[in-house]
Amino acid sequence: MITLQDCQQRDATDPLGSLRKLFSIPPGVIYLDGNSLGVMPKAAAARAADVITQEWGVGLIRSWNSAGWFNLPQRLGNRIAPLIGAGPDEVVVTDTTSINLYKVLSAALTIAAQDAPQRRVVVSERSNFPTDLYIAEGLCKERGYTLQLVEPEEIGAALTSKLAILMLTHVNYRTGAMHDMAAVTAAAHAAGALVVWDLAHSAGAVPVDLTGAKADFSIGCGYKYLNGGPGAPAFVWVNPQHADRFWQPLSGWWGHAKPFEFTPDYKPAAGITRYLCGTQPIVSMSLLECGLDGFKAAQELGGMAALRSKSLALTDLYIDLVEQRCAGYGLGLATPREHALRGSQVCLTREHTAEGSGAFAIVQALIARGVIGDFRAGDGVRHKDILRFGFTPLYIGYEDVWNAVEQLRQVLESGEWQQPQFNQKHEVT
Amino acid sequence: MITLQDCQQRDATDPLGSLRKLFSIPPGVIYLDGNSLGVMPKAAAARAADVITQEWGVGLIRSWNSAGWFNLPQRLGNRIAPLIGAGPDEVVVTDTTSINLYKVLSAALTIAAQDAPQRRVVVSERSNFPTDLYIAEGLCKERGYTLQLVEPEEIGAALTSKLAILMLTHVNYRTGAMHDMAAVTAAAHAAGALVVWDLAHSAGAVPVDLTGAKADFSIGCGYKYLNGGPGAPAFVWVNPQHADRFWQPLSGWWGHAKPFEFTPDYKPAAGITRYLCGTQPIVSMSLLECGLDGFKAAQELGGMAALRSKSLALTDLYIDLVEQRCAGYGLGLATPREHALRGSQVCLTREHTAEGSGAFAIVQALIARGVIGDFRAGDGVRHKDILRFGFTPLYIGYEDVWNAVEQLRQVLESGEWQQPQFNQKHEVT
Repeated sequence: MITLQDCQQRDATDPLGSLRKLFSIPPGVIYLDGNSLGVMPKAAAARAADVITQEWGVGLIRSWNSAGWFNLPQRLGNRIAPLIGAGPDEVVVTDTTSINLYKVLSAALTIAAQDAPQRRVVVSERSNFPTDLYIAEGLCKERGYTLQLVEPEEIGAALTSKLAILMLTHVNYRTGAMHDMAAVTAAAHAAGALVVWDLAHSAGAVPVDLTGAKADFSIGCGYKYLNGGPGAPAFVWVNPQHADRFWQPLSGWWGHAKPFEFTPDYKPAAGITRYLCGTQPIVSMSLLECGLDGFKAAQELGGMAALRSKSLALTDLYIDLVEQRCAGYGLGLATPREHALRGSQVCLTREHTAEGSGAFAIVQALIARGVIGDFRAGDGVRHKDILRFGFTPLYIGYEDVWNAVEQLRQVLESGEWQQPQFNQKHEVT
Repeated sequence: MITLQDCQQRDATDPLGSLRKLFSIPPGVIYLDGNSLGVMPKAAAARAADVITQEWGVGLIRSWNSAGWFNLPQRLGNRIAPLIGAGPDEVVVTDTTSINLYKVLSAALTIAAQDAPQRRVVVSERSNFPTDLYIAEGLCKERGYTLQLVEPEEIGAALTSKLAILMLTHVNYRTGAMHDMAAVTAAAHAAGALVVWDLAHSAGAVPVDLTGAKADFSIGCGYKYLNGGPGAPAFVWVNPQHADRFWQPLSGWWGHAKPFEFTPDYKPAAGITRYLCGTQPIVSMSLLECGLDGFKAAQELGGMAALRSKSLALTDLYIDLVEQRCAGYGLGLATPREHALRGSQVCLTREHTAEGSGAFAIVQALIARGVIGDFRAGDGVRHKDILRFGFTPLYIGYEDVWNAVEQLRQVLESGEWQQPQFNQKHEVT
């Protein structure tokens, strides 16, 4: 049996334990939603104040050069690159995940149309994050492709001679299940298709090696595990073998070879810079640098490998403690137990009865107690309702896990989640 | 002859003079570049600190609802609407000007292809801001349209039976010349075409009436005259008669009718909300609200009509003083003298000699003296090099104009602009 003292002991000897002090976590809160919006680095407010009052307020227009605003997409991209197995000058930070997906999927479709025009199918997972599917749906309609949605176990069978592009999210947002990027990419390549990876729930959470996997295109999110702040700009990577082949269609001036010559015709910049479009939100983008400083500090303590070890230890502990202390309340596990198949979150299910699963209300009752996770509705068929908990090894400790499970146990034992105020749904992201 | 005392007297009786105290202008600076990046509202730093430390730091994921983050695009859109003659719930703030142009031009091309498939030409101005032309170039190639670039005086002749879309920037970024939006729109409609207006140099600078002009689509910038901060998100308006006809292609989840149902298929939201795509940069977006507060304060002092009167008075004064005090140095005027044809900036030219125009170096010498304007290169044929000065009536006064001209006079008289340090070019936006 695992005890509170065991957890405290693990915190005391945690080689990454010192990183937590870089982040601000409200008193009384155990924050298990860093997979949705990461917490605030303590340096963020001072950084914003400097960008606003000095760079903007005093430097004004001159700061595009003197404060390095104009090259921020490349500078931040180079800081993300080592977290995802990308080379120098292969990543830019810009725009949103949805928009970056539009750019890379457009480029991938253009390549496919040229290299393999008989291939007319784009495959993705039915439970991929919806915005990815919406972007793909629009592009497929426009280009005359079929978007085929499959379950994870059907991906192998979908790698046919019709397949142009396999578009997957590396770690599933609902379940935390993780694909074997290298194996899936190799299988898709063997079948003659290109692969686009969404790293929204991977970057900063699990080691990623885009180069090693020979991936074709990738995008990801700045405001989840990278702690860049609400709506922080996203990132985009293109395998250098593809980067110069085509323009992406959002051909704005920041992607121009010589933006300050103000010529009327578009000449794309070399490499990943052509995936930029318009002027970027500098204040929000600057805050992402504070989030990335957490990974710089982690680098000296073992980097992504150490973060991954702790992440798996945290999620293992959560699973073990829920099974040890919350048995008999109808909970199940939607996240794979096998380490190689698990991201950095744990998703619980609950038996569905005539009254529903209660999962929404249980999450609300936990939030009222300061344990912040989130709820994702099931489809009533294949997918059950989910209680979703993200574990960010930069700032979550083992005692946090103990306390989160203890609060869950109390919510279930007391039945307080059945109170009306916990059943009033309102929209959350 | 106009005197310094005259200018001081005009400041003393300026009904909008009290607005200047809302903004932070560095000591010793006369900022005539608000048409490129507006100055910092004094409230901005405190607003950012609140968004970061309270809404993000403490509210965390809950702030998507509790702090109104998720509806910020609509809320800010409704604050911009009265500045551009749009109705309630017709404008959203989101993404960048370039990306919003891609959305509306895509929608306009889709409408044109359905309603008038024989029309295959998009017309714009050769001296339109280049990113607009780059976006149009890409879309025209993709859709099989011809992008025809004309000079302003050739627009009338370009309104032919081949014309699908006329895409113009209301106030030219180089010269400050302003189109008659109502007349041009009516003429294009009479010719059977749709009209897309870029308001980058209009919104907050000159009165705009999109509804009155019966315009079809419009976009604009948050960081110029609206003072939203570096790279502040942009805005987009679609005439309600078109808004529900088609999706724009950047069909992300923020434009979905029910984004939190996480359904795999895309159902566009009603109205302008379908022009949203992905998660927005909340900190940068929140700062735009501080910029818009300046217009709220101006509303009680006469609003856009009063701002326009002062803007014309400032630009008239600048032109008059340059002609009065800087004669004999080869300066010319690229901005129209006629009020109805002028935006809120004045662009000077200088005679080109074998050594060039000197315009770049003169601007640099002025910047070194604290008078911040900018330089735009000519094409050596039709367009001369330009010294560009923006006059933002919210925070520029008449004595500023006097002093700006006096510094220009001294730079020209002393010949200091010929010193080597003022001739080293580096990139600025």
